[in-house]
Amino acid sequence: MLEASARLTGLLCGTQPMNDIWSPRATLQRMLDVEAALARASAAHQVIPQAAVAAIEAACQADQLDAEALVHDAALGGNLAIPLVKQLTARVKAADAEASKYVHWGATSQDIIDTATVLQLRDTFDLLDQHLHTTCATLATLARTHRATPMIGRTWLQQALPITLGLKFAQWLDALLRHRERLATLHERVLVLQFGGAAGTLASLRDAAPAVTEALGKELGLTIPTLPWHTQRDRMAETAAFFGMLIGTLGKIARDISLQMQTEIGELAEPASAGKGGSSTMPHKRNPVGCAAVLTAATRAPGLVATVMAGMVQEHERALGGWQAEWDALPDLARLGGGALAHIEQIVSGIDVNPARLAANLDATHGLILGESVMLALGDSIGRLDAHHLVERASKAAVQSGKTLFDVLAADPAITQHLSAERLKHLLDPAQYVGQAHAYVDAVLALHGARAGRAPSQE
Amino acid sequence: MLEASARLTGLLCGTQPMNDIWSPRATLQRMLDVEAALARASAAHQVIPQAAVAAIEAACQADQLDAEALVHDAALGGNLAIPLVKQLTARVKAADAEASKYVHWGATSQDIIDTATVLQLRDTFDLLDQHLHTTCATLATLARTHRATPMIGRTWLQQALPITLGLKFAQWLDALLRHRERLATLHERVLVLQFGGAAGTLASLRDAAPAVTEALGKELGLTIPTLPWHTQRDRMAETAAFFGMLIGTLGKIARDISLQMQTEIGELAEPASAGKGGSSTMPHKRNPVGCAAVLTAATRAPGLVATVMAGMVQEHERALGGWQAEWDALPDLARLGGGALAHIEQIVSGIDVNPARLAANLDATHGLILGESVMLALGDSIGRLDAHHLVERASKAAVQSGKTLFDVLAADPAITQHLSAERLKHLLDPAQYVGQAHAYVDAVLALHGARAGRAPSQE
Amino acid sequence: MLEASARLTGLLCGTQPMNDIWSPRATLQRMLDVEAALARASAAHQVIPQAAVAAIEAACQADQLDAEALVHDAALGGNLAIPLVKQLTARVKAADAEASKYVHWGATSQDIIDTATVLQLRDTFDLLDQHLHTTCATLATLARTHRATPMIGRTWLQQALPITLGLKFAQWLDALLRHRERLATLHERVLVLQFGGAAGTLASLRDAAPAVTEALGKELGLTIPTLPWHTQRDRMAETAAFFGMLIGTLGKIARDISLQMQTEIGELAEPASAGKGGSSTMPHKRNPVGCAAVLTAATRAPGLVATVMAGMVQEHERALGGWQAEWDALPDLARLGGGALAHIEQIVSGIDVNPARLAANLDATHGLILGESVMLALGDSIGRLDAHHLVERASKAAVQSGKTLFDVLAADPAITQHLSAERLKHLLDPAQYVGQAHAYVDAVLALHGARAGRAPSQE
Amino acid sequence: MLEASARLTGLLCGTQPMNDIWSPRATLQRMLDVEAALARASAAHQVIPQAAVAAIEAACQADQLDAEALVHDAALGGNLAIPLVKQLTARVKAADAEASKYVHWGATSQDIIDTATVLQLRDTFDLLDQHLHTTCATLATLARTHRATPMIGRTWLQQALPITLGLKFAQWLDALLRHRERLATLHERVLVLQFGGAAGTLASLRDAAPAVTEALGKELGLTIPTLPWHTQRDRMAETAAFFGMLIGTLGKIARDISLQMQTEIGELAEPASAGKGGSSTMPHKRNPVGCAAVLTAATRAPGLVATVMAGMVQEHERALGGWQAEWDALPDLARLGGGALAHIEQIVSGIDVNPARLAANLDATHGLILGESVMLALGDSIGRLDAHHLVERASKAAVQSGKTLFDVLAADPAITQHLSAERLKHLLDPAQYVGQAHAYVDAVLALHGARAGRAPSQE
Repeated sequence: MLEASARLTGLLCGTQPMNDIWSPRATLQRMLDVEAALARASAAHQVIPQAAVAAIEAACQADQLDAEALVHDAALGGNLAIPLVKQLTARVKAADAEASKYVHWGATSQDIIDTATVLQLRDTFDLLDQHLHTTCATLATLARTHRATPMIGRTWLQQALPITLGLKFAQWLDALLRHRERLATLHERVLVLQFGGAAGTLASLRDAAPAVTEALGKELGLTIPTLPWHTQRDRMAETAAFFGMLIGTLGKIARDISLQMQTEIGELAEPASAGKGGSSTMPHKRNPVGCAAVLTAATRAPGLVATVMAGMVQEHERALGGWQAEWDALPDLARLGGGALAHIEQIVSGIDVNPARLAANLDATHGLILGESVMLALGDSIGRLDAHHLVERASKAAVQSGKTLFDVLAADPAITQHLSAERLKHLLDPAQYVGQAHAYVDAVLALHGARAGRAPSQE
Repeated sequence: MLEASARLTGLLCGTQPMNDIWSPRATLQRMLDVEAALARASAAHQVIPQAAVAAIEAACQADQLDAEALVHDAALGGNLAIPLVKQLTARVKAADAEASKYVHWGATSQDIIDTATVLQLRDTFDLLDQHLHTTCATLATLARTHRATPMIGRTWLQQALPITLGLKFAQWLDALLRHRERLATLHERVLVLQFGGAAGTLASLRDAAPAVTEALGKELGLTIPTLPWHTQRDRMAETAAFFGMLIGTLGKIARDISLQMQTEIGELAEPASAGKGGSSTMPHKRNPVGCAAVLTAATRAPGLVATVMAGMVQEHERALGGWQAEWDALPDLARLGGGALAHIEQIVSGIDVNPARLAANLDATHGLILGESVMLALGDSIGRLDAHHLVERASKAAVQSGKTLFDVLAADPAITQHLSAERLKHLLDPAQYVGQAHAYVDAVLALHGARAGRAPSQE
Repeated sequence: MLEASARLTGLLCGTQPMNDIWSPRATLQRMLDVEAALARASAAHQVIPQAAVAAIEAACQADQLDAEALVHDAALGGNLAIPLVKQLTARVKAADAEASKYVHWGATSQDIIDTATVLQLRDTFDLLDQHLHTTCATLATLARTHRATPMIGRTWLQQALPITLGLKFAQWLDALLRHRERLATLHERVLVLQFGGAAGTLASLRDAAPAVTEALGKELGLTIPTLPWHTQRDRMAETAAFFGMLIGTLGKIARDISLQMQTEIGELAEPASAGKGGSSTMPHKRNPVGCAAVLTAATRAPGLVATVMAGMVQEHERALGGWQAEWDALPDLARLGGGALAHIEQIVSGIDVNPARLAANLDATHGLILGESVMLALGDSIGRLDAHHLVERASKAAVQSGKTLFDVLAADPAITQHLSAERLKHLLDPAQYVGQAHAYVDAVLALHGARAGRAPSQE
Repeated sequence: MLEASARLTGLLCGTQPMNDIWSPRATLQRMLDVEAALARASAAHQVIPQAAVAAIEAACQADQLDAEALVHDAALGGNLAIPLVKQLTARVKAADAEASKYVHWGATSQDIIDTATVLQLRDTFDLLDQHLHTTCATLATLARTHRATPMIGRTWLQQALPITLGLKFAQWLDALLRHRERLATLHERVLVLQFGGAAGTLASLRDAAPAVTEALGKELGLTIPTLPWHTQRDRMAETAAFFGMLIGTLGKIARDISLQMQTEIGELAEPASAGKGGSSTMPHKRNPVGCAAVLTAATRAPGLVATVMAGMVQEHERALGGWQAEWDALPDLARLGGGALAHIEQIVSGIDVNPARLAANLDATHGLILGESVMLALGDSIGRLDAHHLVERASKAAVQSGKTLFDVLAADPAITQHLSAERLKHLLDPAQYVGQAHAYVDAVLALHGARAGRAPSQE
């Protein structure tokens, strides 16, 4: 019952698995998982009676909570853990009055909420890494396939010099490989237990504090940090920044694809699918619906990252607003990140490449984009400055006359005495003037190969 | 079924009425309201048959939609209107096949979504204005009641000079009155129809376009703008900025109250209520739960405003991400604004003022905060420079000796030859050294009085 | 000496007049203007001796300050006014020791800094309004000139239906006219005096406070607010939001122009000028340098607006960070706003319109974009549903065969029995299917005409 | 001449060394350093004549540039490298016409600007790491010194349970140690060469491209990335995020200190220094000027991080606004980060700890904060639930009667039959109820010790 509307907001950019990780029900369940683990860990070290554990564990089921009351009481108490513990205690009491005294023993609300969030982040990181793995593999295949497919490179939204389509895919891949590296670092630094009690000292656990802490970390599979981190939020800010950077890279990919999908460009297209992006009254249209979703995420992410960073300035041992601001911003970022990645994965896995339009666009300036190629060859004979002068003159003549650069150059004896028509043709072939494009593609593919051995689960 | 989780996210800062305005169900209903009004307006001008209206109207009920399918198809189509129109058409068709041909006639998805948002904003503005009205009235009463209650003014979080508690309330009131002014402007500029069809020209309505536009505006009670505004989003950015500013002012109020509620200060306290902010193990604590919620909103709002502003840079006649980024950011801002205002309204309406602590804090520096008062009086006799010198010396002596400033001054013949002990007592009474505080309070109360005639409904 | 680097940062988007308003020297001079005005106002009401005024006024010259020392001491004192007053006092003392006692009488640092900022904002608003006035006039001319120039409307970066170039210009104009309205409101609400003394009560001015306040406002030409507003920053946030919105609209214009300038589109171009945007090795390139500068501003503005809004949450009677964060953010926004507007003004005043490319792009889909036009006409004869079916079939056939839509339709007896070839030609003429485009242009021009009477100086 | 005003903006939060790294002059010099290195690297591989190198190197001096012209022409050309290369070429030509043909050979503007930025970032990282090193050492000493100094822990700005001052310092230290880790990662991932030529393929260098790239990297001491990264900005976003996180942590420290410096709290104070934070008319005031500067940085940083992240969505092979937005945002963040760190370093190195106020505040609730301590001990005898009940009753009685908790408990036979007065005194001693505080401090000190071996220069 709690789940549906999380999908109505953010509807363009979410995936079922990621929505499931961050759904209200999952959030509550993760909090209850921490409570159950705490009971086990405390009992293992005689802080609470072993007999209390079963009743507490049995009651730790999100579906049994009264969500309406939770929401109402959370607003009064200031967070979700307070009413959750209240309801949990009541439920345990109904089954075992003695056990109910030991619910939440020694913990503070923030311990439960933060640790639950860390558990959700662990699932999030795993999910993202799987999708990064797949997306990188797809991009590697694309880069290999189109390693030598020439296309026009564009700077300032203007045609510049030829590149290859493979180089473009390799650029995207290279950036995503860096994001996988970052994700591995986050795994180590961020996935830590939060457990400090009311003021971060675990005073109420007395001598048992270290042992319970250790046991709780083991129960949940989380590292024990040097000390509790209630108001030191750099780990959460780093996580938010990671989401923001990932979404930024995905946004760049979406921008490129959507620009190349323009009716007048037509080089790439999102894969067609039933109900997606078409228009019955405008059959020529093929809307970049997936790209739009990713660009929406990219428009929203910077503000959400800023929110988490702004929230870092927290008061003393428990914050008044800064911590609480994470509660929506972090899940929103996770959902946007997961959704944007899924969109790009789906797009690149079925991307339509239009070779005719790639070639036509390369030819749109009738060879002007290759003036530099001719100039360099000519420079070998007559020096670069003179070569530059001659080619510049020819380029202007081509623009004014509407002729191709080849026609102008081939008709100019000052050129042809050094470069035959055949040589000119070669020099004006975009495919031969892509510099290090092939080498760069190979380098990224090699890097990907070296990294791909590291499957998602190993990290 | 769609409603619950909108209240789990943002749970600290939302109100039922505002959540109702922006609930998924209400959003869909508003879109259907626009579709129904469009059918009526089109039929009135013979664009569609009058006979089609009844069936369309009858089907325009959000509860009858298949929300799961809506969410799924929205992700494919790129917005919520596409599947909504599809489902609506199917429902109309089941009742009246002929009528179903005329659903959504002439409109584009964005017409429906934007106009529905504008209708929700109208409700939002009305709701906010009612609460601003009430909150201002409460603050006016407080300012009047505490017009002459001295308290310490603080700059840089340090005690500075006396002010009055009434002045503090008047400052807050003055800012909120400006927000009411801004709200009135928004009412005029923002609450306009969006109706332009596929490319913003209403071409498919041919000659009937102006008449249908006019009729649709009347149906919905919205002003007709000069022209459609699909990719000109300044109105939405202005709305977002208003929410951001309102929340900023409320955040300032919450910061002041929470600082004054510190255990060591204790001048003000949020009203106590069952289940709110208490701690059974720490009976001395009274957590500023309402202030924390408002400060959370104030931490989140700037990033959301930035998102809407970043989204203004839109492509051609329909955006690729910039528009879509508004869909979550604007409702989030509305909810945060409504919630923050409700919290402040609730807090100020029952605020606990602790006169003993106000007085004690005024006395914390043993009179040092009133050195300027003595200096000015003394200056009338011996010139300001000498007076400054004498008082500065006395202040330092007081600090070093631990004596009160009065005791030091009263023991110094250089002072007492000009100022009697009685006069010194008066000069060291904070209540008499509050400058224009009373006048400022009166001015704000007068302004409030003049504005209060303008009840919410009249705007 | 202080001026140069303000122009190195933000170098793409600044104008000399706006940089002059916000230069370090101008900032200091405005602060000194306030000090001089305060001396006059105080002397007029016997708060300080009339004899002190001349010496104070004479020393209020920014060029005489030691900028190095100012910068150093500001970091120690926490703001620029503290060392400025110190230096000013020393300078006055050198000329007239008695007069130096009356420098800065009754004021607090924030009074000087805020009021100086308000004076700079007044100049900023005037400058922006002049440029808005001119830019609007240019756009009005362009809208009139191209009222009937058809072009393709684009949604989702895909060709949709025809619009007119005049409509596009009118859309931009309509948004800028709203910004002029907003600017007029700011003029009234924001340009107010800040004068409250150490804790905002003007206590040290005793009974003379109201008279000095009144006189100071008159001296500076500023309205007197209800009360000082040291920690109520909604006026500054509103100003920041205005800059952000203006820049957002200008960014939208720049995005459109740069997209239309793409090599493959070529419909519009920034005016050529020596040294601007060309490339000697790539003569076909014409970089949208002005648009890039505006888009840079649009990328930066949202974060700066968020900064000012985040800063609203201030402590008590003087803030600890929130106020200070305005010092760079507001001037940056003013400079970006002024620069972006100047770029757009320059671009639209010399914009190159390429009619051939506008026409060619309209024809790129061989008529598909006008299927709806045919469908509607056909529907008059055979009903809309059947018409839709026939035209959809023809559109698909045209796409598959590579023929024009006209050729397919004209060869289909099911069509030609209702629509002659001549009628089809007309229906497939983009110029006749632009709906309300002409009427919208006229409406915006009328609005502009009505507003244009209001010249900048009158506001 | 270009330097001064960079220090007027951001004047509260900058340091000379960091300002020097990012000064306009240094920026230009770094660009010229890249040009000189490019000449050497190109000549080493016969791309340009060896004879050209000396003249180029000689001209690569920032002081010889015409800054006015640079700024003017940068606005026309769209970046600073275009006019810089123009002026550089002219200067080389004046000395050696032949050499001037080889200036900037094969590079594109962005290669120069990005690589110069990377060089500045290297200096920035080194500088930050030195200051982090020192600040961490100081905090380690403070944590050790105050390992056992009890103070009140505060949650929600309310007194909660005792902690130690050493624990607070250790918390700050722990976070800063993580920032040092992050900085080491940045060192490896971010400090890479940018060298790709006009479209990122180095086509104009033909076969020599790999060798020149390698040599250029060596010249500058920068790693060679897999491929050029003109429009893949994740490295810059990661850098911005690091600055944002560092500033967030420093802001948290500043918030704590400024709250503890409140007149009514008085536990900590910034070190006093001449001209800093005092007030002649209010001798009791000691303004937290350094904290205010840090909090200003923390208010500004999130918006700047958001700007860099928003800029990641770049077009094709060269961006239109997104890249350019980094030019001010990154240096601003570096300056704010360096300044904030320097302020915190200076504050903690001389921080005034007031033991009397620490103790007095611990006693402010007359023992209520230690109710839990008594409850736990009592629970050992009578069970926790009964103990909770008795202590809760006693706490309420203490609040109502104004007595200390000790007095109430010591007068209650239900208590004293289990706990002697002496035992009660012990239980109500804050120093014995700080839980794991000592252990946490030790753990952080051990971590610091292990890391401290890694001196700044080694990273």
